Amino acid sequence: MTTQLLPQIQSPADLHALSDEQLQQLTHEIRDELIRVLTTRPAHFASNLGVVELTVALHLAFDFSKDKDRLIWDTGHQIYPQKLITGRYEQFHTIRTKGGLMGFPHPGESEYDLFMTGHAGCSVSTASGLKAGDELMGRPDNHAVAVIGDGAFPSGIVFEALNNIGGMGQNTLVILNDNKMSICPRTGGVAKYFDQCRMTGLYQGGKRRINQILDHVPLIGETARASLEAMRDGLKAWIKDGMLFEELGFRYFGPVDGHDLPALRKILKDLKGQKGPILLHVLTNKGHGVPQAAEDPVTYHTPPVFAEVGPDRAIVSFKKGGARAYTDAVSVALHRAMQDDPTIAVMTAAMCQGNKLEKVREDFPDRFHDVGICESHAVAFAAGMAKSGANPVVDIYSTFLQRSFDQIFQEVCLQNLHVTFLMDRAGLTGPDGPTHHGVFDVPYMRLFPNMVSMAPGDEADVAPMVKFALQHTGPISVRYPKANLETMERAEPVAPIELGKAEVIEWGEDGCFVAFGTLLSNCVAAAKKLKAEGIHMGVVNARFVKPLDKDTILRAVDALPLVVTVEEGTVEGGFGSAVLEAANAAGLDTRNVVRRGIPDRFIEHGERNELLADIGLSADALADLVRTSRAAEVAR
Amino acid sequence: MTTQLLPQIQSPADLHALSDEQLQQLTHEIRDELIRVLTTRPAHFASNLGVVELTVALHLAFDFSKDKDRLIWDTGHQIYPQKLITGRYEQFHTIRTKGGLMGFPHPGESEYDLFMTGHAGCSVSTASGLKAGDELMGRPDNHAVAVIGDGAFPSGIVFEALNNIGGMGQNTLVILNDNKMSICPRTGGVAKYFDQCRMTGLYQGGKRRINQILDHVPLIGETARASLEAMRDGLKAWIKDGMLFEELGFRYFGPVDGHDLPALRKILKDLKGQKGPILLHVLTNKGHGVPQAAEDPVTYHTPPVFAEVGPDRAIVSFKKGGARAYTDAVSVALHRAMQDDPTIAVMTAAMCQGNKLEKVREDFPDRFHDVGICESHAVAFAAGMAKSGANPVVDIYSTFLQRSFDQIFQEVCLQNLHVTFLMDRAGLTGPDGPTHHGVFDVPYMRLFPNMVSMAPGDEADVAPMVKFALQHTGPISVRYPKANLETMERAEPVAPIELGKAEVIEWGEDGCFVAFGTLLSNCVAAAKKLKAEGIHMGVVNARFVKPLDKDTILRAVDALPLVVTVEEGTVEGGFGSAVLEAANAAGLDTRNVVRRGIPDRFIEHGERNELLADIGLSADALADLVRTSRAAEVAR
Repeated sequence: MTTQLLPQIQSPADLHALSDEQLQQLTHEIRDELIRVLTTRPAHFASNLGVVELTVALHLAFDFSKDKDRLIWDTGHQIYPQKLITGRYEQFHTIRTKGGLMGFPHPGESEYDLFMTGHAGCSVSTASGLKAGDELMGRPDNHAVAVIGDGAFPSGIVFEALNNIGGMGQNTLVILNDNKMSICPRTGGVAKYFDQCRMTGLYQGGKRRINQILDHVPLIGETARASLEAMRDGLKAWIKDGMLFEELGFRYFGPVDGHDLPALRKILKDLKGQKGPILLHVLTNKGHGVPQAAEDPVTYHTPPVFAEVGPDRAIVSFKKGGARAYTDAVSVALHRAMQDDPTIAVMTAAMCQGNKLEKVREDFPDRFHDVGICESHAVAFAAGMAKSGANPVVDIYSTFLQRSFDQIFQEVCLQNLHVTFLMDRAGLTGPDGPTHHGVFDVPYMRLFPNMVSMAPGDEADVAPMVKFALQHTGPISVRYPKANLETMERAEPVAPIELGKAEVIEWGEDGCFVAFGTLLSNCVAAAKKLKAEGIHMGVVNARFVKPLDKDTILRAVDALPLVVTVEEGTVEGGFGSAVLEAANAAGLDTRNVVRRGIPDRFIEHGERNELLADIGLSADALADLVRTSRAAEVAR
Repeated sequence: MTTQLLPQIQSPADLHALSDEQLQQLTHEIRDELIRVLTTRPAHFASNLGVVELTVALHLAFDFSKDKDRLIWDTGHQIYPQKLITGRYEQFHTIRTKGGLMGFPHPGESEYDLFMTGHAGCSVSTASGLKAGDELMGRPDNHAVAVIGDGAFPSGIVFEALNNIGGMGQNTLVILNDNKMSICPRTGGVAKYFDQCRMTGLYQGGKRRINQILDHVPLIGETARASLEAMRDGLKAWIKDGMLFEELGFRYFGPVDGHDLPALRKILKDLKGQKGPILLHVLTNKGHGVPQAAEDPVTYHTPPVFAEVGPDRAIVSFKKGGARAYTDAVSVALHRAMQDDPTIAVMTAAMCQGNKLEKVREDFPDRFHDVGICESHAVAFAAGMAKSGANPVVDIYSTFLQRSFDQIFQEVCLQNLHVTFLMDRAGLTGPDGPTHHGVFDVPYMRLFPNMVSMAPGDEADVAPMVKFALQHTGPISVRYPKANLETMERAEPVAPIELGKAEVIEWGEDGCFVAFGTLLSNCVAAAKKLKAEGIHMGVVNARFVKPLDKDTILRAVDALPLVVTVEEGTVEGGFGSAVLEAANAAGLDTRNVVRRGIPDRFIEHGERNELLADIGLSADALADLVRTSRAAEVAR
C-alpha cells in the first residue's frame, strides 16, 4: 500500500472528512510510518502500535485544539500517532534526534501536546486539574480525558487522583489502556483484577449476562437455593465489573476492543454526553499490527534498529547491538554478590529489562521484587527488609527514583538503615530527553544525613563499588550513566574502594580534573591532549561525593593553580558545590576551582555525546576550558 | 480512680497477668495519663485516646518484642499508649521535651518502636518489607501488622503497597483504624466508601444479612423478578463489604468496634491464625473517653494546654494561645489576594487547620481543594489548573512537600507553569522532631530550572511576597517557619519585593550577616549586640535564593572582611552554598564567607529556640561567631 492519506492530515479536523474505510487505511499508514522510523533509529515501538485506533477515535470524538477539550497521554511515549495526525508528519523522520521532534509529548511542538510527560501516573491528576481550571476560567463545557496504561495504573498518584475525582464527582474521563504490560510484565493485585475484568467479556457483557440469569428465574422451591447460589456468582461477576473504580466513585464502562475503531468512536461519543467521573476500560495489544511485536512486547518496547523488514511487516533482522554498558557491569556484579550473600534482595520498579535484571529474576526469584511503577513503595519496602536484617538493593533509574525522595529521607536515612541504591541512567540519557535525564540525584542524595553517595569512574570501579555498597552498614548509593563501559589506563593498580577516598589517577603540577563519575574518561582524554601541548593536568577519580575525600581534593585546591570539578549532574548544589563547601570550611581560597556539570536549564534530547559537547563536558571542551583558564591567569 | 496498674506494666508481657476488669481499668489509667500530659504541654491528644484499646489488644494478641512479630504504627503520633505499656511510663512526663521521649515512635527508645514515623502512609510498605525480610532471614512465623488511619489511607503509597501485597499473597495484616478523620475532616472517594462499609453494620453483619435473604427465597414466579432485584441489592451490599480491598487480593474483616477490648482480642487472635493478606476494619473515635475531644477532634488533635480539667474529664479551660505566627500572616495575605483575583485556587493536603486555611475554605469553597494526604496529586493537579490559566497555590508543609519532589520537577518546573508553593513549617518545627522539621526544601527547590525560591525576612515581607508570587509567571515558592511573627526596625521604608533582589537592612564596614529567611531577626539582634562592642556588622535580608541577588551579596563578599550566611535549613547545598557558587563563578575569594545553617545530622525534638541555640543559630551564637572569626583574623 502506498502512503496517500497521512500526508494530507494537517490537523485532527481533517479526520472528519474521511470515510470509515479511509480511516482504516489511515491506521495502516500510521503503522507503516512507525515501522519506517524503526529502520533508522531506536524508538518506542510496541506501545505506539497499540494506540493507533484509540488516538484516531479520540480525536474524532473530541476537539483537543487550543483551550478546548483536554487530552493527556500518561507516560507519553505512546504519542507518535498523535504527532502524525497533528501537523507533524513532515518532521516525523526527525523524531528522537537532536533538534528534531521529541519522543514524548512536547508543548513547544504542538498545542495538542499539553504536558511534557515521561514519568508515569500523573495524567489523571493533570487532567483533573485542567478540568478544574477550565471550570474556574469559564470553560465549563470542555471535556478532560486522561489515557493511562495498566502498567502505570498502580502508581500511587493514580489512586490519589481517582480518589479525589471520585470525591468531587468531577466530569473526567479516564481511559485505562489495558495491554497487560508495563515495560516489563506487570505485577500486583491490580493486574489480577484487570485480568478478571477481561474475563467477564467485552463491553458490558456482564450486564447482559445478568439479564439472561434473570430470565431463568427458578420457579421450583427445592432447587431455588442452589440456583440462587449460582446466580449470586453471576451477580458477583456483574457487580465486579469495574467495582474497584465504582468504589472510588467512578462509573465503569468496558472492556472495549481498542482496535475496533467504529466501536471506539461510538462509545467515546456516548460517554462524552455523560456526567461525573467515568472510567473506560480499553483492551489493546502492544505491538498490534506487527506480529512479532505483538508476540514479544518486552523486546519490542524499544527494539534495536530494524535492518530489514519483510512482507507483512515481518522484522527480518536487527542491526547489531552496541558495546557493553554500565548497566551490564552492575547487574553482573549484583548477580555475583547474590550468589555469595543469601540475604541480598533486589527491588525494582518495572525496570527489569532496562536494568538488565532478567538473570537476577530468573536465578533468584524469591529475592527479586519488581513492584511495578511504584517507586515510593519499593523504597519503603526495602527499608522494612533492611530493618529485619536483610540486605536490600533498590535498582531504579535516577530520574524515577525522584518519586522516592521522601521515603529515602524518612524510611531509610532517618532510620539509618542499610539500603543500597543503584541509580541507573544517572546523567544525560540521550534521545529520551529531559524527562529521563538523571540530573538531580547528586544533590538530592547528598542532602540527607547518613547517606553515602558514590559514582564509579570507570568499569574498574563498578564491581568493587557494588561490593562495597553491599557490605556497608547504612544508606548508600551508586550512580552510573546510560553509557558504554570504559576503563582508564592507570600507572598503578586500581585503588581499592575505601569509604570517602578518591583515587588519584595522575597528579599534575599545572592543575587537576576532579571527576565524580564516568566523565572521568573525558577528563583523562582532555589531560592527554593537554599533555601533548606541555600542560600537565592531573586527574582524580573522586568516587565519593559524600563523604568527600577532603584530604585529596583539598590538597589539590590548596596546591594547584587550577582544579576543574566535572560531573554529569546539575551544578546547583552538586559535586562541585560540595567541593566548594569543603574548601570554604577548611579556609581555602577557591578562585582556582572551576565547576563543570549540567547547567541550570532543562537539556533537550539528542545523543549523549552531542549533548555533553553542547554543555562543555566533552574532552575537547574540557581541554579548552583549561587553556582558557590558563590564558586568563597569565593575562591577570 | 487512683493509678495503680499502669506503673506496674514494664512490658507487654505483663498484660497477660491482668483480668478483663483490670485491663479495662488499665485503659482508663492510660487515658488519665494522656490528659495529665496535656495539662503541661501541647501534644497529640485525640488520636491517642482513640487507640488505647487497640494498642492493648494488639500487644495481647501478638508478641512484638525484638525480632518477633512486627508492628508499625502509621504516621506515629498515636504511639503514646504503646510507650506507656512498653517500659516508658516513668519517663512519659518528658514527652516532646528536649532530651525527653519523642512524640513519635523512636527505635532508640524501645525495641517496640521499629520505625521513626511521622509522614503518613508508609506503614503498609514497611510492614510488608519486614515480613519479606523475616522470611528471608529464617523467621517465617513472624507476623507483620500495620495500623493505618483512614486519613492516611488515600496516600498513593498505601495503594502501591496493598497492590503489591495482594499480588504476592503475602501474610500481612493491615488494620484500618477508621476514625472518620484525617487531621482535618477527610475527603475523597475512599472516605465515602468507608462510610458505606460502616453502614453495613458491625463485623460481618453484611454476611449475616445475605443468609437472611436466602432464607426468604421467593417461591412465586410472578413476584420473583422484583424480589430478585431486592436481593441483588442485598447481595451487592454483602459483596461490597470490603470489595475495594478484596479486589486487590485482601480478605476483608469488619468493621469491628475499636473500643470493645474483648471483641478486638478475639478477632485479632482469629486473624493471627489465617494466611494471606488481611484487612481488618476497626472503628474508633478520635478523642474516645473525653467527651469534648470526641465531639471536636479537629481542635483536640493537638489542643492548647489544659489549664483546668474538671470531673468526668471535662476540659474546663485552655491556657491562652501565643502570638500571631507566620502561618497567620500568610493565610491572611492569601485570603486577601483571593478576593482580588478570582483565578486563584488553593490546594492543601489535610493541612487546612495547620495552615489556618479555614477562612479560605469557608469563603471560597469552590477554589479550595483539600486533597487529603495526597501531596503528589496536589501538585500535579495544581499543574493542570495552571495549564488551563488558573492561578493555583499549593500550601503544604515543607517536609510533606517532599512527597511531591518528582511532580515539582516534571509537572511544574519542566513545563514552566505558574504554580505558587507556600511552604509552611520550613525550618525547625520544635517538639515534633526530625520527621517534621523542614530542613531540605532550600536545596531541593533550587535544584530545578525555572523555579524561583523565596523566604520572607520578617512580617513586613510576608504579604508583599505572597502577592509577588501570585503575580509571577512561572514556578515560585515561599518558605517560612513555624514561628511567631517579628518585624525588624529599618532606617529606610521596607524595600518592595523585586525578582532576585535582596534588601539591605544596614551596611556595616566590619562585615555582614546575609540571612535567607526569618533568622534575619537573630542576625539583627546579633548585630545590635556587636555594635555595642564597637563591631559594625551589616545585615542583608536575602529574600531570594534563586535567583540570588549577586549584585548585593557578591559586593559584600568582595568588599567586607566577613560575610556570614544564615539559614534555617541544611548547609548541604543550601543558601550558603548558592552564595559560594555565585562567588566562585564571579572569581571571588570566599575565605571571608562563613556559612551557618542546620548541620548534616538529624535534629532531635525540643523547643525551636533551644534547638536553634544548640546548632549555633541563636543571636548569641551568631555574635560569638563574629567575635571568634575576627579574633582568628587578627591572630593570622
